Amino acid sequence: MTLRETLARVAAASPSAMAQARAHQGRLTKPPGSLGALEEVAVRLAGAAGVSPPPMPEPAALAIFAADHGVHAQGVSPWPQEVTLQMVANFLAGGAVANAFAAQVGASVTVVDVGVAGELPVAEGLLSRKIAYGTADLSQGPAMTVPQAVAALEAGIEVASSLVASGARCLITGDMGIANTTASAALICAFTGRDAARVTGRGTGIDDTTHAHKIAIVRQALHANGLPSTGLPTPAPAESGQGSPGGREPLEVLAALGGFEHAAIAGFILGGAAARVPVILDGVIAGSAALAAAALAPAAIDHCVAGHRSAEPGHAAALDHLGLRPLVDLELRLGEGTGGLLAHPLVCAAVRVMHDVATFDSAGVTEKQS
Amino acid sequence: MTLRETLARVAAASPSAMAQARAHQGRLTKPPGSLGALEEVAVRLAGAAGVSPPPMPEPAALAIFAADHGVHAQGVSPWPQEVTLQMVANFLAGGAVANAFAAQVGASVTVVDVGVAGELPVAEGLLSRKIAYGTADLSQGPAMTVPQAVAALEAGIEVASSLVASGARCLITGDMGIANTTASAALICAFTGRDAARVTGRGTGIDDTTHAHKIAIVRQALHANGLPSTGLPTPAPAESGQGSPGGREPLEVLAALGGFEHAAIAGFILGGAAARVPVILDGVIAGSAALAAAALAPAAIDHCVAGHRSAEPGHAAALDHLGLRPLVDLELRLGEGTGGLLAHPLVCAAVRVMHDVATFDSAGVTEKQS
Repeated sequence: MTLRETLARVAAASPSAMAQARAHQGRLTKPPGSLGALEEVAVRLAGAAGVSPPPMPEPAALAIFAADHGVHAQGVSPWPQEVTLQMVANFLAGGAVANAFAAQVGASVTVVDVGVAGELPVAEGLLSRKIAYGTADLSQGPAMTVPQAVAALEAGIEVASSLVASGARCLITGDMGIANTTASAALICAFTGRDAARVTGRGTGIDDTTHAHKIAIVRQALHANGLPSTGLPTPAPAESGQGSPGGREPLEVLAALGGFEHAAIAGFILGGAAARVPVILDGVIAGSAALAAAALAPAAIDHCVAGHRSAEPGHAAALDHLGLRPLVDLELRLGEGTGGLLAHPLVCAAVRVMHDVATFDSAGVTEKQS
Repeated sequence: MTLRETLARVAAASPSAMAQARAHQGRLTKPPGSLGALEEVAVRLAGAAGVSPPPMPEPAALAIFAADHGVHAQGVSPWPQEVTLQMVANFLAGGAVANAFAAQVGASVTVVDVGVAGELPVAEGLLSRKIAYGTADLSQGPAMTVPQAVAALEAGIEVASSLVASGARCLITGDMGIANTTASAALICAFTGRDAARVTGRGTGIDDTTHAHKIAIVRQALHANGLPSTGLPTPAPAESGQGSPGGREPLEVLAALGGFEHAAIAGFILGGAAARVPVILDGVIAGSAALAAAALAPAAIDHCVAGHRSAEPGHAAALDHLGLRPLVDLELRLGEGTGGLLAHPLVCAAVRVMHDVATFDSAGVTEKQS
């Protein structure tokens, strides 16, 4: 499915399914509202699926999109670039945290090479959709061409469609790419209008000097790509709540600042939304990719659940802009899909309540006296 | 096992196992500290088990302790007292939220009648350990006699021991008892020295007038039982961090203010700790019971993980006093063990990392350049 076809298929949440889900919650044998944020998760998934109760979001499939970044040359990360490739091998061998968490929650793991700067062997569980051997350096100009960004988006769409065709009923975003929090920060600046100093974090661990340098590189990237660079107010949002940064098309912005994995994850979100299969977003990489997906098709976010809030400050800004409340908030800052995987049992529990729990009438339980 | 024997068996966390667990975390293929609070969970469980990595906390067993409360007569809850008995029937029929969540995470469910004010039929999954048909009214004097409190504690110890003997490697606390947030608030006042207005919440849903009345009842309960009633400073904590409220023995305080389920949950915690099997605490009922357990055997808390933070204000006060950080924070206020169940996959994920994840050496991944 092309990007254009996918965008056309993304439908907004069904208000009637959401109303039915809310009414159903009120009849269950529990005090009204006592499941807190999980009640809204169930209502959200009913809206996304267009039916109440929504289907159980099981089995889940994690896709880890891996790519390298030209901006790594600017010294924004203490990790050598080859760690991207080494970690892909670790995922395929089952030795990473994402594998352990996926095993815990019963999710499948698919690794997708959309732009690793090196040769990967053919392996089970690895899809080769390499667009290039890493992006260009976003601090010097566009990281990707627009056709490259479209190719990465369509790779993400294809992976989502294929996992859904294989039976997945929940998609979880994952990423691997040394230096990808720099690209994420730049995307978050562009799409939310916030200042680089507020959204650029320490990624997997950098000192104060490197952090200051990373902020400067994010500012330089915005400048080099002709985008507003320091805390300009967010452009007046469209009805969707999404703006068009600096008057530029979302696709151009994504190509200018994103990584291949950001574009692919945006496509993965759109592909899930088009198939009406919910997508659990992982951390700051997914959050910044979701901003791009939302700019392309605002209704895509109706199909997303924020799995967690990472320790990266830009992530909170992205979630805030998207109007999403994270389920897990434990200061994780690993990526790989780990935060999304942790949220999966919570999402399942929220939906299972709608299927399994008795009503006051059916269970013969007396209701609260008002 | 008697209470006295159990208290003698509760051992503090092993500092050497904790140090080993921290060192192991540092060798795994992830940036140091990138699993946030989950790294501390794994270290905590290693300390509790006395070995690193700690055993996987699976399978899990939920015990729901059910009882009624004399203070219900004071109009502190909008729910009729018979809902306790009706909900026990709902648990046994598999129709409650706790059942749905337990099914989601693969935990067994055992319901223990320690003081329901009515007759329950013999049923699979129900243990009858009834101490009395509900407690006396704590606002008029002691809710339980000390021998009753000991009997309830020993019922909880017995259930913990029996579940561990049947193979449970993680215990989850659950409760059912209309009006039990009133008893919880009173216990939290007594054990933490905080004012009733700060720790008394709206339970499963009450209006402003009932809330003010509930606060007054909590104050009256403290007064009627000769305990400091309004925000006196916490008594100087012992080395353990726990104080002896108003100079009274913890067992007397628990008997004066607790419900049978509070005492049984305190015993369940002590039983798990004595067996070195971790206990995931649910919400405010468990938090107040854990204060009693900690006052009886401070090291018991080394074996506990706070599953979630409920919307009840007293729960945060209890966790703060115990030095526990909750894993799930989604404004749940249902009880039954629901918040503890939701945390179980997170606890398992934290421990699984210690077993499954490759080290930098073994995976051939280059370490961060410092």
